[in-house]
Amino acid sequence: MDAISNCWFSEIQDELWPGQSFSLKVKQLLHREKSKFQDIQLVETETYGRCLILDGIIQCTSRDEFSYQEMISFLPLCCHPNPEKVLIVGGGDGGVAREVVKHPMVKEVHQVEIDDRVVELSKKYLPGMACGFESNKLKLTIGDGFDYMKNHKNEFDVIITDSSDPIGPAVSLFQENYYGLLKNALKEGGIVCSQGGSFWLDCDYVKKTMNGCGLHFPKVAYAVTSVPSYPCGHIGFIIGSLDANKCLQDPVKKFDPREIDLLNLKYYTSQIHSAAFSLPRWVEKHLYS
Amino acid sequence: MDAISNCWFSEIQDELWPGQSFSLKVKQLLHREKSKFQDIQLVETETYGRCLILDGIIQCTSRDEFSYQEMISFLPLCCHPNPEKVLIVGGGDGGVAREVVKHPMVKEVHQVEIDDRVVELSKKYLPGMACGFESNKLKLTIGDGFDYMKNHKNEFDVIITDSSDPIGPAVSLFQENYYGLLKNALKEGGIVCSQGGSFWLDCDYVKKTMNGCGLHFPKVAYAVTSVPSYPCGHIGFIIGSLDANKCLQDPVKKFDPREIDLLNLKYYTSQIHSAAFSLPRWVEKHLYS
Repeated sequence: MDAISNCWFSEIQDELWPGQSFSLKVKQLLHREKSKFQDIQLVETETYGRCLILDGIIQCTSRDEFSYQEMISFLPLCCHPNPEKVLIVGGGDGGVAREVVKHPMVKEVHQVEIDDRVVELSKKYLPGMACGFESNKLKLTIGDGFDYMKNHKNEFDVIITDSSDPIGPAVSLFQENYYGLLKNALKEGGIVCSQGGSFWLDCDYVKKTMNGCGLHFPKVAYAVTSVPSYPCGHIGFIIGSLDANKCLQDPVKKFDPREIDLLNLKYYTSQIHSAAFSLPRWVEKHLYS
Repeated sequence: MDAISNCWFSEIQDELWPGQSFSLKVKQLLHREKSKFQDIQLVETETYGRCLILDGIIQCTSRDEFSYQEMISFLPLCCHPNPEKVLIVGGGDGGVAREVVKHPMVKEVHQVEIDDRVVELSKKYLPGMACGFESNKLKLTIGDGFDYMKNHKNEFDVIITDSSDPIGPAVSLFQENYYGLLKNALKEGGIVCSQGGSFWLDCDYVKKTMNGCGLHFPKVAYAVTSVPSYPCGHIGFIIGSLDANKCLQDPVKKFDPREIDLLNLKYYTSQIHSAAFSLPRWVEKHLYS
């Protein structure tokens, strides 16, 4: 099976998800280039809208991206009593920024993305996500997340790490010392949320990342959301809180259905928030015992 | 893209999931035949274990089948105060029978499957599922579910329809008159649970099926579970209750973690039961308003 043949793009990744592949029928390759950091493709698919592919891995499609973007943003935001100042690491397509700025308590959003080409190409080809960059709450920095956090201590209420998978440029964002930096950049009671992989693909890796987080954060949990264009059709999040008494499954800010609709949230609700932390028995045993 | 090339099996279905395809790397084709009803393939995959494929559509893999089998069984069983007598329609691989007979209140299980070749081949190639047929609680009938139910009125506490997708032999199992037959075969307060498709693939079809169920059942709900080898990585269930006051999200029988482990349930818990009914905001609005 080739990566692209007969108008299909197939996501093949022998290290992260051997033996399985998700394919999308492609109407048109819109753009392809090698940036300083990665291979970037933008394709128009037949039934999933526009799709961003980095180093051969699907990052988002117009059809289902809102599930990921809303959940990685509102899970931590709604666990914090007053999320005024937020940092986004990664998220070059703008989708997480779009969601974070919606939250009525958020006053200031800082974002640090390593690859300006992802930002520029998203503005051109993924305007439904890149609209996040237009908010006057947002300040975007092109640079390295590690360096940025070393220079910003005790500043943020919530930090969201919207990274690609733990291979290539994003691998360090899953390691224990990254969680040490996150902790130092947070204010008291701060909360972090990171893309955390799939329990179906590699439950050991999820546990390892949670353990790394747990060395710096007294409260750690794992939640999932359904995203058809991601491997195994879902993605997990690792959430850490500096407040040891925090129940992450129970949002402190509960939006009612009318508010959810006014915020134009298509996926997230308070019920979905809690449900996201309910894990299959074998996963619960593997991660929490 | 061909259905099988270079050792990959690709699930292509232009009517039900156009423009997307899930592929599994195949180590060996174990068996292929055309039965009276369908094309049957059994393959050994590289990372998903054994896989049953009917008319080119993946029915189950050893790696993730327990999610589907446990949830389609325990969601309705745990909503019923005393599920003594259960009917399974379809389920020729034996996986649902394996789960249903575990429930300590279940005394008698009847199963009617149309294709004896699926049963025989599952006994040979999928012993981990077909072990369900060995229970002395179970009576298996080879025949048509419609005919069977016409001759069995007011008999069952729970009826589970474990069908393939609404194309080919199973299409009638999604229609309104099928729910009329189910109702007549149930005792007072009875509960039905059917494979109900994916909200990502076709939310209108889910709603249509729920409406058909709703013509005969005063309480209807939709729940989902994560199954990587199904299209969009999940599958839904439509659950109907003859008890108008039933809250399907809240199991009447709550097994504690020790009981869950003794029953060898790897996926289902009481928390997962409730979480399965929490739907994304757009789906909730589409199905319930």
